[in-house]
Amino acid sequence: MTNRPHTPFLDSIAGPADIRRMNDMAIANLADDVRAEVISAVSQTGGHLGSSLGVVELTTAIHAVFDTPRDKLVFDVGHQCYPHKVLTGRRDRIRTLRQEGGLSGFTKRAESDYDPFGAAHSSTSISAALGFTVGRDMGMPTGDAIAVIGDGSISAGMAYEALNNAGAEGRRLFVILNDNEMSIAPPVGAMSKYLSGLYASPMGELHKMAEGFEAALPGPLRDHARRARNLVTGMQTGGSGTLFEELGFSYIGPIDGHDMSQLLPVLRAARTRATGPVLIHVCTTKGKGYAPAEDSADCGHGVSKFDVATGAQAKSKPNAPSYTKVFGSALTTEAQMDPSIVAVTAAMPSGTGVDIMGARFKDRVFDVGIAEQHGVTFAAGMAASGLKPFCAIYSTFLQRGYDQVVHDVALQNLPVRFAIDRAGLVGADGPTHAGAFDIGYMSALPNMVVMAAGDELELMHMVRTAAAYDEGPIAFRYPRGEGVRIELPERGNLIEIGKGRIVQEGSDVAILSFGAHLAECRKASEKLAVQGVSTTIADARFAKPLDRALIRQLLRNHKALITVEQGAQGGFGAMVLHDLANDGLLDGRCQVRTMTLPDRYIDHASPDAMYADAGLTAVDIAATAMQAAGIEVKRVEVGV
Amino acid sequence: MTNRPHTPFLDSIAGPADIRRMNDMAIANLADDVRAEVISAVSQTGGHLGSSLGVVELTTAIHAVFDTPRDKLVFDVGHQCYPHKVLTGRRDRIRTLRQEGGLSGFTKRAESDYDPFGAAHSSTSISAALGFTVGRDMGMPTGDAIAVIGDGSISAGMAYEALNNAGAEGRRLFVILNDNEMSIAPPVGAMSKYLSGLYASPMGELHKMAEGFEAALPGPLRDHARRARNLVTGMQTGGSGTLFEELGFSYIGPIDGHDMSQLLPVLRAARTRATGPVLIHVCTTKGKGYAPAEDSADCGHGVSKFDVATGAQAKSKPNAPSYTKVFGSALTTEAQMDPSIVAVTAAMPSGTGVDIMGARFKDRVFDVGIAEQHGVTFAAGMAASGLKPFCAIYSTFLQRGYDQVVHDVALQNLPVRFAIDRAGLVGADGPTHAGAFDIGYMSALPNMVVMAAGDELELMHMVRTAAAYDEGPIAFRYPRGEGVRIELPERGNLIEIGKGRIVQEGSDVAILSFGAHLAECRKASEKLAVQGVSTTIADARFAKPLDRALIRQLLRNHKALITVEQGAQGGFGAMVLHDLANDGLLDGRCQVRTMTLPDRYIDHASPDAMYADAGLTAVDIAATAMQAAGIEVKRVEVGV
Repeated sequence: MTNRPHTPFLDSIAGPADIRRMNDMAIANLADDVRAEVISAVSQTGGHLGSSLGVVELTTAIHAVFDTPRDKLVFDVGHQCYPHKVLTGRRDRIRTLRQEGGLSGFTKRAESDYDPFGAAHSSTSISAALGFTVGRDMGMPTGDAIAVIGDGSISAGMAYEALNNAGAEGRRLFVILNDNEMSIAPPVGAMSKYLSGLYASPMGELHKMAEGFEAALPGPLRDHARRARNLVTGMQTGGSGTLFEELGFSYIGPIDGHDMSQLLPVLRAARTRATGPVLIHVCTTKGKGYAPAEDSADCGHGVSKFDVATGAQAKSKPNAPSYTKVFGSALTTEAQMDPSIVAVTAAMPSGTGVDIMGARFKDRVFDVGIAEQHGVTFAAGMAASGLKPFCAIYSTFLQRGYDQVVHDVALQNLPVRFAIDRAGLVGADGPTHAGAFDIGYMSALPNMVVMAAGDELELMHMVRTAAAYDEGPIAFRYPRGEGVRIELPERGNLIEIGKGRIVQEGSDVAILSFGAHLAECRKASEKLAVQGVSTTIADARFAKPLDRALIRQLLRNHKALITVEQGAQGGFGAMVLHDLANDGLLDGRCQVRTMTLPDRYIDHASPDAMYADAGLTAVDIAATAMQAAGIEVKRVEVGV
Repeated sequence: MTNRPHTPFLDSIAGPADIRRMNDMAIANLADDVRAEVISAVSQTGGHLGSSLGVVELTTAIHAVFDTPRDKLVFDVGHQCYPHKVLTGRRDRIRTLRQEGGLSGFTKRAESDYDPFGAAHSSTSISAALGFTVGRDMGMPTGDAIAVIGDGSISAGMAYEALNNAGAEGRRLFVILNDNEMSIAPPVGAMSKYLSGLYASPMGELHKMAEGFEAALPGPLRDHARRARNLVTGMQTGGSGTLFEELGFSYIGPIDGHDMSQLLPVLRAARTRATGPVLIHVCTTKGKGYAPAEDSADCGHGVSKFDVATGAQAKSKPNAPSYTKVFGSALTTEAQMDPSIVAVTAAMPSGTGVDIMGARFKDRVFDVGIAEQHGVTFAAGMAASGLKPFCAIYSTFLQRGYDQVVHDVALQNLPVRFAIDRAGLVGADGPTHAGAFDIGYMSALPNMVVMAAGDELELMHMVRTAAAYDEGPIAFRYPRGEGVRIELPERGNLIEIGKGRIVQEGSDVAILSFGAHLAECRKASEKLAVQGVSTTIADARFAKPLDRALIRQLLRNHKALITVEQGAQGGFGAMVLHDLANDGLLDGRCQVRTMTLPDRYIDHASPDAMYADAGLTAVDIAATAMQAAGIEVKRVEVGV
């Protein structure tokens, strides 16, 4: 064991019920212990350190005041849940965070009764919490609901929809705005400025409290709060209040989210007095209490394993540039050639690599915030004006803008380029972040061109091809992580729309790969060669339009044709089957098999381990090919 | 020809350029002519009368002040575009609205340069308009952008995302809030109350104007406006302004949207002075100027053909209850048996039929407003609390909540019941409203059960089955319009999950129908019988889980197996092909064909005409079956 921190207060409790028996001073001490434990654990596992450190006091205070798990604590995004996991019976496993077979890096219903609603995508917490309040009011066995949501997450339309609905419903509901002025990237948008304005105003710690809460406060705070409220809301003149009050919420705050002497009385007052929806505005510092995190540019948002004393993170030695970087660089090259190229990201400038273009062409990169719906249609509007937008959104988050892809882009045949990063299984972030469905949901759309990159060089070709293609929408997907270490030119080539390529000629079986499992297909062919089986490998490049001639050629000349993709059923393999079936070509002379992700969610682990779990290794592919072709295994020892 | 109205001012113009040469009085008269023309046209075609009548003056004024089509006028939803079409060179075709081969009932890029961005789903206009402003600022050949958005549409999260981003961007942009206090249904949510409050306040016509605009106003209005602004914003005390100002917009209004003497000077002042984003709050009356519309409960939202003098609408005689009504009644029956059943609608209580349940159980039906993202996760929260939510959303609008279906419902395996109305092609509303993709995007999700109703009795069974199924999420789809006139019991039966049914036994070919094309499959079998071909018809009921035994039985005993569905490729047929391919059963002894919607959008027409266009008639099905089975046509005269 490495040095464990000294945590007497934390050692003394088994769960939240024990916190409720502590006095306020002990609760503050407990929070310090939780912080030390989180730092120690994440130093061994890596993970979302900064946001977890920011909510140590807040999480402890909520469990001290509310009756969890009967009261439902819903964390938005959920990556700030490490203190919560430490406090809710999962301390013994906290050093397994994000490891295969270990704790999830997010809240997860299957993991604990204290996780009433899992998350990983942003801005869902208020909606879910409102659902619990209705359950409570209709007699279900549930208490109050508390949503904890960051200032970045609240900029998404979904959170606004939920505030709007919750304000109108008027039910007792607690929304805690965890305002650290920092989502993954510095937050953007007008709402962020507005919140900063509230924070920066000179009213003191208890900035403003709704009528009724004030009476429950200790005397000095009470007078201060009342005066502050009057000043801010302009009560004297009948003017309007804060944005949240305009939406029907009582508003309390801003308060210091690291000061238990503010958190505990305010939460207690809110719990005692609330009859309707209440928004408690809590200001926190991301990375709080750990200098290396506080001092880093991203406040320790996502860290690898690190040395606790120095904060120095373990550096993995990359074998090859990441797909994300290759995309960002290739996009920048194209942007340099064509001034009408612009890029859109939804709060992920570095995650998507468009920051590389932004460093060169600041005014042509648009970060719309966590707002995929708007981002897609904004890109469509730019395309309609004659610009050439690249809309760079992870596969899993593009689900947020699906209707906009259908209705505003594909139906109008507008040339928006979708750069779909994090396609396929993504590793430690687990099933919530898997890019499993985009091949199907994009290929179903008339007018859409759908590509996937077989390696990082192919990605360069696809960026260039997408930039040049102006006849309608086009999408290209590529995985998380490093490429296969291939020599890269200055600029990619144009590839012909709807044309795949033969990667390796063979005679017995054909593997038709769509996307980055190409390398695994090559390995499969090596295993097949050991069995004396000669394999053709083709890179389909396009799920739509299909290279029908290539597919027919493979079908004619082999005993089996295996499609391989990093996605769910209903995607590339389905398009191939539809095409062949409807031409009457599925006659058994060449047996066709489709290898896809299985019909279940794959738990977090390394991507390789996840693909093994999914049955998509080279061994699986080789075995499927041999079975389909009716070839018997000769040498069992190779593992086929 | 029926009586055409007397419209001398309208007769005198060819397009918007001519309006700009008119004096203000003539423009007001022109608007009257436009109103008369719209009433006359819609009396012959039916359509969205109320919203079009509400924007007659506003539309005329915008074209009088802005330089359309160089300035981009983007109508939100687009169903209020009839006056716009009358004024922009489409008057000669205005009596073909929503008819096959005629004008679309929405804005449509392909139809006119004056339609720079098509719409039909709500809340996209601000995003698109912001895209145009970026294009303008980057030198594309486009002028200003004006979004016209209703108070219902602005409650959607997407509009908030766009306002938030536009406020931060700070570019010159015009957003006109068309506030008629009425979306399709009376609007819900806190934002609606907020807007009503602004409207009802006693400040007079020009309620409040941002600094700088006031100077451009006629004298008496100026003083009034300044005083009003000060009162409302509480400037004296440094308090905050309206919600829109907090998001970074200059705010002008509310003004009377039927008074040209307010509209023209305000729009001119805004156009002259604006340097950043401006929101102009215009109050209108839906159905304005036509008493039968103004007096009706829905203000003439959607009407059939009518008599202009009396407003009496042509009544179609239904042959059978609509699927929507059958769903609403069956849901009410289940709700009566089980007090934990609740329903969610996104601003469509009558469109989805949940108003039938609402009439009995008011507190158990939740209209969340145009907020599908929130609605789905709200339902997930209710399910997590132990309630049994039915989430009733049209297929095309469920696209708006897709990520929430994936991330909050399916991944957590929460038992939310999705009632997917308007599945398949929908008629006059055209391709924007087609429910084409849900089979694929739902079937791809692990844990999801996906059903489709073969007829209205099947729908009753599925409502009951979904109510009883509590192991995870379940969805059932059904089409727009009437059922097949089948006798209906008091309550549906439970059906076994994953089990289809044989509808008709035959020996030569098998048709496996998923959903409401079952009736068309029966007709196909009649045509086949004329050819001496014996047909088995099966109703799959489930796309997921598949009835694998049934499919294998059909495959074994027939020369051809034809799957039929009212949806795109990648759906039911794809699931069948995946299943058969991966078991090595596609050996050509039974030829399999998948009949789906084609890979293009189908223009508006009657549903039957649209399905004919799509190649999905009984004749098409019969021909496909015969071709697949290798049976020659014997008697060409029957049309096969």
